[in-house]
Amino acid sequence: TQELIDAQVARSWGQQLIRGWSHGWIEAPERIGAKIAGLLGAKAHELIVADSTSVNLFKLALAALLARPERHKIVTDDLNFPSDLYVLQGICQLLKRPCRVEVVKSTDSIHGPMEGLGEAIDEDTALVTLSHTVFKSGYTYPMAELTQLAHKSGALTLWDLSHSAGALPVQLNQSKADLAVGCTYKYLNGGPGAPAFLYVREDLQDQLGNPISGWMGQKNAFEFGLDYQPAAGLRHFLSGTPPILSLSAIEPGVELILEAGIEQIRRKSVQQSEYLIALWRQKLAPLGYTLNSPEDPRQRGSHISLGHPEGLRIDLALINEMNVLPDFRYPDNIRLGITPLYTSFADIYHAVDRLAKVVEDGLYHRYSTEGIAVT
Amino acid sequence: TQELIDAQVARSWGQQLIRGWSHGWIEAPERIGAKIAGLLGAKAHELIVADSTSVNLFKLALAALLARPERHKIVTDDLNFPSDLYVLQGICQLLKRPCRVEVVKSTDSIHGPMEGLGEAIDEDTALVTLSHTVFKSGYTYPMAELTQLAHKSGALTLWDLSHSAGALPVQLNQSKADLAVGCTYKYLNGGPGAPAFLYVREDLQDQLGNPISGWMGQKNAFEFGLDYQPAAGLRHFLSGTPPILSLSAIEPGVELILEAGIEQIRRKSVQQSEYLIALWRQKLAPLGYTLNSPEDPRQRGSHISLGHPEGLRIDLALINEMNVLPDFRYPDNIRLGITPLYTSFADIYHAVDRLAKVVEDGLYHRYSTEGIAVT
Repeated sequence: TQELIDAQVARSWGQQLIRGWSHGWIEAPERIGAKIAGLLGAKAHELIVADSTSVNLFKLALAALLARPERHKIVTDDLNFPSDLYVLQGICQLLKRPCRVEVVKSTDSIHGPMEGLGEAIDEDTALVTLSHTVFKSGYTYPMAELTQLAHKSGALTLWDLSHSAGALPVQLNQSKADLAVGCTYKYLNGGPGAPAFLYVREDLQDQLGNPISGWMGQKNAFEFGLDYQPAAGLRHFLSGTPPILSLSAIEPGVELILEAGIEQIRRKSVQQSEYLIALWRQKLAPLGYTLNSPEDPRQRGSHISLGHPEGLRIDLALINEMNVLPDFRYPDNIRLGITPLYTSFADIYHAVDRLAKVVEDGLYHRYSTEGIAVT
Repeated sequence: TQELIDAQVARSWGQQLIRGWSHGWIEAPERIGAKIAGLLGAKAHELIVADSTSVNLFKLALAALLARPERHKIVTDDLNFPSDLYVLQGICQLLKRPCRVEVVKSTDSIHGPMEGLGEAIDEDTALVTLSHTVFKSGYTYPMAELTQLAHKSGALTLWDLSHSAGALPVQLNQSKADLAVGCTYKYLNGGPGAPAFLYVREDLQDQLGNPISGWMGQKNAFEFGLDYQPAAGLRHFLSGTPPILSLSAIEPGVELILEAGIEQIRRKSVQQSEYLIALWRQKLAPLGYTLNSPEDPRQRGSHISLGHPEGLRIDLALINEMNVLPDFRYPDNIRLGITPLYTSFADIYHAVDRLAKVVEDGLYHRYSTEGIAVT
């Protein structure tokens, strides 16, 4: 990635100047999208890279609501990433009709509320949208089952795959999923804030419109016509010019995952997660750590959250003194990502050892919960 | 820029990992925005870097229309960048009330239709939005005069500064402009598809909402509350996570322009443009080239468009054989950008010499208008 980006800056931008657009830049959203599609059980022309996850969610969720004009409800859950809820709330306010976001509550904060969702999804539901793997507990929804449930009521589905893409095999086509979005900077290794992807199933591409109708989605953009005419297929879901350096950095990571094989990555991820849980049971549970992720590997993505009443202070001690870098997720989740291409079993052993040491030696007492760093 | 990006990839991303967010990344939209504000006559906290120009235009134009709920019209002109018109057309369809985009026609394709705009802007106008410097002819609108006209009717103004930022001094505050957007990859040298900026005048920031209400604009985002609460000030106009590599690359170019001084850059830009026009008159007009830009430097940005019936074929010959790299803009504009920090008077002399040679020697005959490259 480092070499590629250096060449992009020095050669493509620095020397080729605008010629870079005809040497790979203009097709990059589709070219890289097609590669990501290979990890997600989608056809190459069903996935494209553009904008941020939030902007893509806005575009697709709004498009879905406009395609179900007689319905008034978006169904989601309280395990979804809050930003997704914010975007949905904003969309509801824009609609010409009454609209509400029904946030189904999880009973245990770990598992998706399948029963509650079953009750909430009805004939008035335009869209069911969930994080496929949820950001705190790592619970993974059964995509095909939920999609079938939504379709039975005539609703569309929109999956946020941010914590699934590159972490486990996803079967968008096989599950009959309608729409999806996701970021490329977690398991896909696309780099900080790298552009996101969006998926629209083949048969929906010309049925749905992009509310942010910009020039990158225009048919024959270089004719500079004054009226918007959407490009055929997925391309009209592009809006403005993509950030090329950040976009380019996505490709090598995706290629590595394709080369390794997502099935094999998943196999090792399950082994490593099980190993981590076994170590938790043996060494960490006695110290007050709880397992805030599902025990059943079939219900899990590739991260494990451990809870502790002193979670935030423990997290700070781990980062600052122990060279263990979890994410802390309110109220008490110490989130550990398992990334088989570069996480070893020894890494996991050492991480658990340090989690134990931080509590045994009371190292977290040095940290206050005030003024935490944003990570 | 090359060193900075290499350090971002190798050190900040490669070694610091997510710690980069607390070492400069999270504040980058505001930090770089504040520097750009210094070029545009805005206060530091009135400008932020985010998304693409199209997405920012969508956010601000929609916010403006929602702030004028009893009005039905957006006024713009046919010299505006078509993407801006596409975005406006898309917004109109979303509104709960009738809405139309009135595109005022220019009489000569070069100068902004001041008279027509004066007639179009009325009590039913919610928003007046124009390219400050238009992309084909380089005509620059009198911002203060237009803004006054809009305000007299109670309309808001939204300026697209893509071809002005870094090219000439802009006086957003002094002109009483309400809103602005613009790209960073033309005169600001931010790199291919670098993220765009948006400006919201101080007193409007808490009056207007961001329709794409994502987590970067949330008050206390790391509390992960389930209800959207906009951050105070400009920050709630952020939506999703910014693409850090592309964002970082903006800063060195902006700093160079600040160091050189936009007034001095402007002075040289006018000298160079006048030199180019003098050479056109002497050497190119006799060969059939027309001046498709205003003759008066006070009405011009920093690019000059030359027309020719064989414009596209001439453009292709220049790019492929003469090491002159203009943009071609339909139907006949050969657009030459004057960028005083790295364009010399000798460059201009040679460019004109080659424009002459391409016609004198008939070199353009080798090129067809089919299968042109996208640049």
